[in-house]
Order: sequence, then C-alpha cells, then structure tokens
Amino acid sequence: MTEIADSGSAGDTPVAFQDPGYRAAVVDLLGAIAYGEISAFERLAEDAKLAPTLADKLALGKMAAVQFNHVEPLIARIAELGSEPMEAMAPFVKAFDAFHARTAPSNWLEGLIKAYVGDGLAADFYIEVAAFLDAETRTTVVTSLSDVGHSEFVVDRVRQAIVADHRVAGALALWGRRLMGEALSQAQRVAAERDSLAALLAGGVDRPGLDLAALGRMFSRLTENHANRMAELGLAS
Amino acid sequence: MTEIADSGSAGDTPVAFQDPGYRAAVVDLLGAIAYGEISAFERLAEDAKLAPTLADKLALGKMAAVQFNHVEPLIARIAELGSEPMEAMAPFVKAFDAFHARTAPSNWLEGLIKAYVGDGLAADFYIEVAAFLDAETRTTVVTSLSDVGHSEFVVDRVRQAIVADHRVAGALALWGRRLMGEALSQAQRVAAERDSLAALLAGGVDRPGLDLAALGRMFSRLTENHANRMAELGLAS
Repeated sequence: MTEIADSGSAGDTPVAFQDPGYRAAVVDLLGAIAYGEISAFERLAEDAKLAPTLADKLALGKMAAVQFNHVEPLIARIAELGSEPMEAMAPFVKAFDAFHARTAPSNWLEGLIKAYVGDGLAADFYIEVAAFLDAETRTTVVTSLSDVGHSEFVVDRVRQAIVADHRVAGALALWGRRLMGEALSQAQRVAAERDSLAALLAGGVDRPGLDLAALGRMFSRLTENHANRMAELGLAS
Repeated sequence: MTEIADSGSAGDTPVAFQDPGYRAAVVDLLGAIAYGEISAFERLAEDAKLAPTLADKLALGKMAAVQFNHVEPLIARIAELGSEPMEAMAPFVKAFDAFHARTAPSNWLEGLIKAYVGDGLAADFYIEVAAFLDAETRTTVVTSLSDVGHSEFVVDRVRQAIVADHRVAGALALWGRRLMGEALSQAQRVAAERDSLAALLAGGVDRPGLDLAALGRMFSRLTENHANRMAELGLAS
C-alpha cells in the first residue's frame, strides 16, 4: 500500500476541483459507492430471509442496516459538490443490479460469502481509488466503508458449515471465484462507459495517476486480498 | 388518553417485577415488538423494490433502516430482564409472518400505505400497552417507536397519486381496511395464545388493569387513530 499512501496527499488541495473533470469524477465515484451501498442493503435484507435461525437473520439484518446508514453522508457530499444525488447514482444502477441478478445466492452460505467477499472487494477498490481524492472526499469515502465489523460472524458460520460437512467447501470456493469474476466484469463495463473514473485513475495536471504497470499492481493487490478473505473462510480461491 | 395516563404510574416501582407473571409479560411484549420491527424492516426493504424512482427507493430504504436500528435496545432490555432475546421473539414469528404474507402489497402505493398505516397502528397499540409497564421498560418501548418521521413522505406520495388519478382512492381505501382487519385478526390470535399479554392488560395485585369497558375504549381509540391516518392520506376508512 506504500505506493497509494505516497500519492494520497496529491489531491488534498482544492486546486483539484479547478479541473471540471475532477469534480465530475468525484461525483461519479460517490454516486457509484452510494448506489452500491443501497443495492447491497437491498440484497442483504433479501438474503436475510435465507437465515436458518432468528439470530442469523438478525446478524444479516444488522449488516444491511449498517450499509444503509452509510448512504446519507455520501449523498450529502454529492449535493455539496453541486450535483443532484439521484442523478449521480443513476448511471450505476444497471451495473450493480446486473451484478446482483447474476449472483443471487441460492442458499444461506452463498449469501454470507457474497456479503463478506463482495463488501471486502468493494471496500478495497474504493480505498485504492480514495488515494487519488482530495482530503475531504477521501474521508467521506473511507468513513462510508467503516463500521462493518461483521467479518467474525460470517467467518464463524462458514467455518462451522465446512466442519459439519467438508464437501460444501468445493462448491463455495467456486462461488467465490464466480463472485470475483462477475464483480470485475461489471467494474470493467462501468470503467469503459464512464470516462471520468478512468480519467481519475489516470491522473491530472496536478494529480499523479497510475500508469499501466501501477494499475496492474493495484489489481494484484485486489486479487491477493480476495484470496486472503477466501482463505480466512477456509476456502480455496 | 387520560385514562391511560392515570394508570401509567402504577408500574413505576420495581415491585411489579416481584410478580413473575409481570416479568414474563414484559419479555413477551418486548419480544413481540422486536420481532415486529425486524419483520417490518424486511418488508420495507422488500417493498422498496417497487419504488418508481431512486429517490422513492431511498426513502423507503431509510424507513427500513430506522426500524432495524430500534431492535438492539429492545433486545438489550430483554437480556437485562434475564431472558434470551431469540427465545423471546420466537413465539411471535408466526403471527407477524402471517400478517405480512396476507398483506403483501401488489404495488408501490399499497406498500406505502401499509408502511404508514401498519407502523401507526403498531405504535398506537404499544404505547397504549406501555402505560401498564414500569418506567424503564416503558421508556425502552416508547423510544423504539420514535424517530420514524416518514409520514410526510408517504402522505405526499399517496395524495399526489390520488390527484393524478382519483380512481385509485377506492381500491386504496379497501386496502387500508384489509390491513386493519388482518392486524386485528393476528393480534387477537396472539392474545389468545399468550396469556401473559392478556394478563398484563388485566392488571395485577399492585397494578390496575383494564376492565372490559376500558378495553373497548382502547379499541375505539385505535380505530379512531386509524381512521385519522387514512383521512390524512386522503382515503376513506
């Protein structure tokens, strides 16, 4: 993460906002994160129906409510930047909805893994991107990803299930790979359609960017973190 | 509400808890409210899918998250009283799930009215019952019903829909009556199965209760408030 930490200070000055492309990119990013949290909320609430016990349902419901509680500060920041929050979110509805439609869990464990792996991947990605943002926006983004703290619950439940029947591990490992594949595929589609986000990563006159090699290293980090999360669950990646 | 306010101070002393039936009734009541909030959360999150716009979806999602955020203090109070929260909620799962299954909204407006009328009715009922509780439990209950504040949003949307097409008003008025009927029917089933709640309303050695006439007046108040809410929406009751 050294590379990211070093470039992180570059966007601190309001100078960044003199570039109209920068403002547009920030609004896009916040819109994407906000709709991502709304759709994660909807999915977690839906997946809570699969819970085998009331305690499990409560735990997943809590994860859903936490996600939703993050939405308001993001929307407030979008408005502060002079954009209409609903318009800012609109371009990302299709990609997130497609991701969720293609990765609807067919059972409780799949739902848990999706919550854990999906949240983790999204958080890693947004934190990588946050390094290219001005300080205030960066704080908004990083705060919106905190206070999740459900990892232990998910890890515990998945490991218990594998102990109870080790044959589930194979199918769940495949599920983890599918989640990663679908997430990358939708992210790539969004990046191709929204020039602003690609431009954000590419840098600007006063902001350093990622060259192709650095972008490659970023994807390596994302993949590595994903593999670590799968391992934490007791699953191959 | 004078009748209720007068009897309200009777449960203030911890003496109430010397009656084992009282403790059981309080745990039952808190379990019912907690599961009611969880199931309302699930339903609101589900109904948010019917939202015609992203802003509407956000508003319903917020109502869902607010409901869920109320659950933890209720669960904490149940644990304080020495009971297991999941066990306390369990007896009420069937009735709430049946209520929601029988009143699944078939469109966005039905979902809005259900949220508004259902929350209002539940809140009225719990506040009536709270008057028979010790001070600390009463505070927990009343707090769990506050911070809703979505009425204006619902009223605004339903009224707009009636202005746009006044023919919807007839079907929505019938829907409101059905919600009230199903709620009363499930409440009656719960009261018949759980003696503790009926005993709570009937009073104890040191606690005044409701005689049949007073119970009748309580139901009149609930019905009247329901009619007022329907009128606020621009609907007959």
